[in-house]
Amino acid sequence: MVSDGTERRASSLGEFGLIENLARTLAEYAVTGDAVPGLVLGIGDDCAAVRRGSVTDVYTTDTMVDGVHFRSGQIPWRDLGWKSIAVNLSDIASMGARPVMSLVTLGLKGDEAISDLEEMYRGIAEATHEFGGSVAGGDIVRSPVLFITVAMTGEAAVTAGGAAFNRARLMAGSMTGTGAGAGYPTAASQLNFDRNNAQDADGAALLRRDAAVVGDQIAVTGTLGDSGGGVRALAEGLNSKAVEALKRAHFRPTPRMAAGVGLVTQGVLAAMDVSDGLVDDLGKMCRASGVAAKVRMPAVPVSNELKDSFPDDYAALALSGGEDYELLFTAPEPVMAAVSPSLGVPVSVIGEVIAGEPGSVTVVDERGLPIEVAVAGWDHLNG
Amino acid sequence: MVSDGTERRASSLGEFGLIENLARTLAEYAVTGDAVPGLVLGIGDDCAAVRRGSVTDVYTTDTMVDGVHFRSGQIPWRDLGWKSIAVNLSDIASMGARPVMSLVTLGLKGDEAISDLEEMYRGIAEATHEFGGSVAGGDIVRSPVLFITVAMTGEAAVTAGGAAFNRARLMAGSMTGTGAGAGYPTAASQLNFDRNNAQDADGAALLRRDAAVVGDQIAVTGTLGDSGGGVRALAEGLNSKAVEALKRAHFRPTPRMAAGVGLVTQGVLAAMDVSDGLVDDLGKMCRASGVAAKVRMPAVPVSNELKDSFPDDYAALALSGGEDYELLFTAPEPVMAAVSPSLGVPVSVIGEVIAGEPGSVTVVDERGLPIEVAVAGWDHLNG
Repeated sequence: MVSDGTERRASSLGEFGLIENLARTLAEYAVTGDAVPGLVLGIGDDCAAVRRGSVTDVYTTDTMVDGVHFRSGQIPWRDLGWKSIAVNLSDIASMGARPVMSLVTLGLKGDEAISDLEEMYRGIAEATHEFGGSVAGGDIVRSPVLFITVAMTGEAAVTAGGAAFNRARLMAGSMTGTGAGAGYPTAASQLNFDRNNAQDADGAALLRRDAAVVGDQIAVTGTLGDSGGGVRALAEGLNSKAVEALKRAHFRPTPRMAAGVGLVTQGVLAAMDVSDGLVDDLGKMCRASGVAAKVRMPAVPVSNELKDSFPDDYAALALSGGEDYELLFTAPEPVMAAVSPSLGVPVSVIGEVIAGEPGSVTVVDERGLPIEVAVAGWDHLNG
Repeated sequence: MVSDGTERRASSLGEFGLIENLARTLAEYAVTGDAVPGLVLGIGDDCAAVRRGSVTDVYTTDTMVDGVHFRSGQIPWRDLGWKSIAVNLSDIASMGARPVMSLVTLGLKGDEAISDLEEMYRGIAEATHEFGGSVAGGDIVRSPVLFITVAMTGEAAVTAGGAAFNRARLMAGSMTGTGAGAGYPTAASQLNFDRNNAQDADGAALLRRDAAVVGDQIAVTGTLGDSGGGVRALAEGLNSKAVEALKRAHFRPTPRMAAGVGLVTQGVLAAMDVSDGLVDDLGKMCRASGVAAKVRMPAVPVSNELKDSFPDDYAALALSGGEDYELLFTAPEPVMAAVSPSLGVPVSVIGEVIAGEPGSVTVVDERGLPIEVAVAGWDHLNG
């Protein structure tokens, strides 16, 4: 194949165009979908999922390249190690799964100080010590640019039957008007289980991108925009106590492991993590689910540190900053009301799933008027 | 941590020094070994292995960086895709496991022609179509250098009980002097099972680096040095029909999937794949097993294409060329005699495991005199 100036280049398709392209090529060879025995989820969600025997595993991988996803010399080495693990843990959390183990690949120029790499390893160790997903192997290669790739395996935390039972209980409690949990049925089989998620009660329940339903409430954990604010602060050389908190959010994100398991256990179906910006990621979830979304900006959780540091831009950062690694999820009101207080992290209901052009996300202000969302989502190939 | 000119640099430790360093740091945080529930094999073998429920999985990852492990414009794009999968499959084969699925990470500069990437995807599809390990997900990131990382999961093919039974049968056949298989016992429990590999008969049998025993024969599949010859031919601009075969061996290696499963099924315990050169890899196996090895150069399998193309250097290429992706294994004579003809690929017995300085490998010529092995193994960090 001769490449000349008239060839279309990879950057013209962007990350998701290329992934679709790859998936199409694989399909021509019949090596996707059923070619993986037991495949539950393939290309397109936060993780792939495969069931074998009694075990349903989820798989994810994320890469950080120097000069693209971080700048060596700017991010502390220990935080770099932490973050390389944390962003993968976040994908595992967004499936409602638990981490099992990690493979770490280091691309090294060779001139890195060993003491710096040891600091990085300590960050890797700290993150896995706190959240799991210990390093079981990996690879070290020479590369003209420093990069870190982590491939992480997780395991589904709860059966579909158990999750559906809990969901049905919460829904029934609401329908009898006696509050969540009060309408506990005598048998789960009496309830109208969600067929989509519980076709096989012994199979695993997983949070998915494609399970948002019109009428669901939309919620996020934590606050949004802090990491994006940290990036801005670093670029602009800002310094203050508030700014330090934003930088820390960027350098050392906290994966929402327990919250993810809490969601799936209680019967939430639809979730993903916010890595490319709220509006961009919510759009992906809506596209996968064939629905649209309305978000109320005043309900979007924003930290005081972000507001104080960027009084004019905090909304744009919260909507499109990226690298938040919070969980975005949807559920019917009674499920949401019961689940939210139980997750151990702040939860904010920020809008509703609505009928409309699949993938379209409308953000409205306090008067209900649409806000133009200026900043596009993070395209990993062109970003 | 301040880095100055007196800092020790990563390249001074090499790949394996750095891996030991990483493992030590993880151990300080107690996040290796038992920190992975069900860990069977951790850092140090071709794959990590984890057992959960009835399933024992193996995990491996390999990376190819442009200018280090391949040269874009030199290797055909389709072969690049094939090879990125094949080298991981080879690790799975070397455990006696079967591939389950792959995650593919592409680091792209963005100026790659889409048609070239599609060719690469076709190579990925061809390899997984032929051998398994279909792509279930992955990641595409921007990078100043093109790289491909594949993380592959496999599954153990046979139980320890089944493998040990077959091994014992072959050994007993030999001991009764009536040939392999003739001494079939009435019950496997009457036999002296290999405790190392069959502590738990329901657990998985895996080929390991650390299971070579003094007295074992040493064997390899296929021929060695062709890939290294291909690299030399490319560097020197050679062209001939023979040289084309060597280049093909380098660009499009064949993972020995069926042979790996055949070995473990019949009770072979010790194997790895030859990726860094025979002497280097055999040294690693001997070090892990606490033994030494003697290799007879005249028994080392070399193709006519390699001999014809490099009449003076074929021995050095066969001993140290690297990227052969053949299986290297050891077994007692009766097991070797029964197993070798059944693998569906040529097998050559090249030497014996002996007592001696752990890791030391002696190569002797047709008169039994030691040959100096000039070329060092491929160090992934400095290579």
